[in-house]
Amino acid sequence: MTVLTSSRPLDVVADFPAIPDGWAYLDTAATAQKPQLVIDAIARGYDTTYATVHRGVYQRSADMTLAYEAARRRVAGFIGAAENEIVFVRGATEGINLVATCWAREQLKPGDRILLSMLEHHSNIVPWQMAAETVGAAIDVVPLTHDHRIDLDAMAAMIRPEHKLVALAHVSNVLGSVLDAKRATEIAHSVGAKILIDGCQAVPRLPVDVAEIGCDFYVFSGHKLYGPTGIGVLWGRAELLEAMPPYQGGGSMIDRVTFERTTYAPPPTRFEAGTPHIVGALGLHAAIDYVEAIGLEAIHAHETALVRQTRDALHGINSVTLYGPEDAAGIVSFSIEGVHPHDIGTILDESRVAIRAGHHCAQPLMEMLGVPATARASFGVYNGPQDIDALVKGIERVTRIFG
Amino acid sequence: MTVLTSSRPLDVVADFPAIPDGWAYLDTAATAQKPQLVIDAIARGYDTTYATVHRGVYQRSADMTLAYEAARRRVAGFIGAAENEIVFVRGATEGINLVATCWAREQLKPGDRILLSMLEHHSNIVPWQMAAETVGAAIDVVPLTHDHRIDLDAMAAMIRPEHKLVALAHVSNVLGSVLDAKRATEIAHSVGAKILIDGCQAVPRLPVDVAEIGCDFYVFSGHKLYGPTGIGVLWGRAELLEAMPPYQGGGSMIDRVTFERTTYAPPPTRFEAGTPHIVGALGLHAAIDYVEAIGLEAIHAHETALVRQTRDALHGINSVTLYGPEDAAGIVSFSIEGVHPHDIGTILDESRVAIRAGHHCAQPLMEMLGVPATARASFGVYNGPQDIDALVKGIERVTRIFG
Repeated sequence: MTVLTSSRPLDVVADFPAIPDGWAYLDTAATAQKPQLVIDAIARGYDTTYATVHRGVYQRSADMTLAYEAARRRVAGFIGAAENEIVFVRGATEGINLVATCWAREQLKPGDRILLSMLEHHSNIVPWQMAAETVGAAIDVVPLTHDHRIDLDAMAAMIRPEHKLVALAHVSNVLGSVLDAKRATEIAHSVGAKILIDGCQAVPRLPVDVAEIGCDFYVFSGHKLYGPTGIGVLWGRAELLEAMPPYQGGGSMIDRVTFERTTYAPPPTRFEAGTPHIVGALGLHAAIDYVEAIGLEAIHAHETALVRQTRDALHGINSVTLYGPEDAAGIVSFSIEGVHPHDIGTILDESRVAIRAGHHCAQPLMEMLGVPATARASFGVYNGPQDIDALVKGIERVTRIFG
Repeated sequence: MTVLTSSRPLDVVADFPAIPDGWAYLDTAATAQKPQLVIDAIARGYDTTYATVHRGVYQRSADMTLAYEAARRRVAGFIGAAENEIVFVRGATEGINLVATCWAREQLKPGDRILLSMLEHHSNIVPWQMAAETVGAAIDVVPLTHDHRIDLDAMAAMIRPEHKLVALAHVSNVLGSVLDAKRATEIAHSVGAKILIDGCQAVPRLPVDVAEIGCDFYVFSGHKLYGPTGIGVLWGRAELLEAMPPYQGGGSMIDRVTFERTTYAPPPTRFEAGTPHIVGALGLHAAIDYVEAIGLEAIHAHETALVRQTRDALHGINSVTLYGPEDAAGIVSFSIEGVHPHDIGTILDESRVAIRAGHHCAQPLMEMLGVPATARASFGVYNGPQDIDALVKGIERVTRIFG
């Protein structure tokens, strides 16, 4: 991959006002810090151009409607989709719940099966459990390879025509493992199953093109892509969205309401009841402008290099166990013998290194790994070698304290 | 009411950077403009204190969690509720859908009935229709009085033990009619029905205390209360929330996840799956600080005076028909003989007066009024007599153009 030959690390931390000098923010997989450009777009949405969308007869509202729809078009272009296939949601969690409610509960019959993997985030497990319980479907789980990737050979061997839906993470939020989403899609489609890809950790880290992948649904959260909180994206194939009933009822999503009978608007409007998170969409637009100006391939190269440096350094510390594949995307999970991950996190915080410690909303994976929790360092565009130095020094301090 | 004796109009338009000199923004019932204090709180959430909530072991995340929960406490205090009864949602629409899904679909049986009113917003009609269709329940509609209030005498006469849920607007978004929410609650409870109050247009215009009202659920949107988009509030009695299943599945809302069985967290966490709209909650906190610093009684007096001035002026124009009661809260709907409301809106826009024209997401009410649409002027804290002058001059221009 040519992008890996990039020898020029990104140096953009100055774009991020909430990252003070000397603070190693290594929790980007939980949420990304925001570049000033995004914060400015949000402030402008409130202090200059603010109005409602889709309804006003005055110019300000017409302009805001154009801006809101321009954000939708920008998202579509970002992932290789059509504009009318982009539904704004609160985040990936809501996107998955929408598909679980409006597609799975409608389409699945008793005896049907849903195929997930062992490394899924709770948001890509619980909505399917709730849907499966309602319709009488069952859930199967694809195991991982020895280096903690979703085992696509195993998936190909276990998938059956009863599997009507497959839902997999594009990049694991715990391990950084990158899914071959195209091959996973081909396997799903080989038995006629639809496939949803959870792209939360992928869109900030890799170029993503849903047309090239060939999948059926794709979801991600804005706040993990350097955008605002409270906004995310569900992409679905037009013909699937078209056939789905509404999710929430309310203003905007209707065609005609009477107390006797209500008819619904076409997608994506059908799925956006009520006043949307207007300024959230504007902020997400700015965030996509920001990451595309850097380039997703450059970001991927940058983060892959940081992961390699981190893993190389931690391999040298005897008491450290590393999880996930060597070529993980932007995320490194680890544990230290005899030290609870929360203690690692707390001690690192004293050294101004912010990591996450816990089950990372992936309790089944923790159980498989045989640990209650891991420590996790995750990278963003603003991180550099100085952050890895701080992390490694902090870990050495942990091992001294507990040694 | 002593608050109506206030003779000092509010003069706070300078707090609102998106309202330029000479622009009469009269669409606050659709969405309110934001004071600088709210915009600053949002910017600070992203450019200074940003982190995720509920998960981080580092100080910044612990601080953000405190701030997020302080916002919940602030909301609770604002409406006289307990902190653990406040669920953050996208807006009132989602709040109503949550109750329709997690309470009504669980509790209602075939043959049960839901009682709404003729003036409800689509967001307080469509979710109940969807729930009623699922469970085999029916919907009844309380008529309006001759001056366009929800007719509580008629409600008292028509309510029956089959009515398990009543859902009514506290203030009509079209007419400004104020519901006697306490009496409506007593009527609902007289047959054992639960009652949800849609407070979207009430919380920015009146002091609201859910304990005093005695209702069971109350919802409102942040963006109509001078706060950010994408955040709103569902309040529910603790014992009702406790008995309700989750709405969306995902991170945070679980107790323990295995592929075999998942258990859920207690409310309000159970209903907040995924990373919440963190900065939205901070902005809402600031918005409540803002309106409480002015005082809801002063705001109510201010807007009631503006409504009276507007109605007095429009009563003097022959071709104008006014809707709603004389003592409406902050909202005046009207039509002009022979002029489509959209044309009114467009011509007013040329005079830098922004009103709404349309069905206001209340098509059944439009049908009852016998019009396809109305023009609507709605007020906020920033409006003053100069805006009414501009509106009246603009309407006179409309009547000249079409006269």
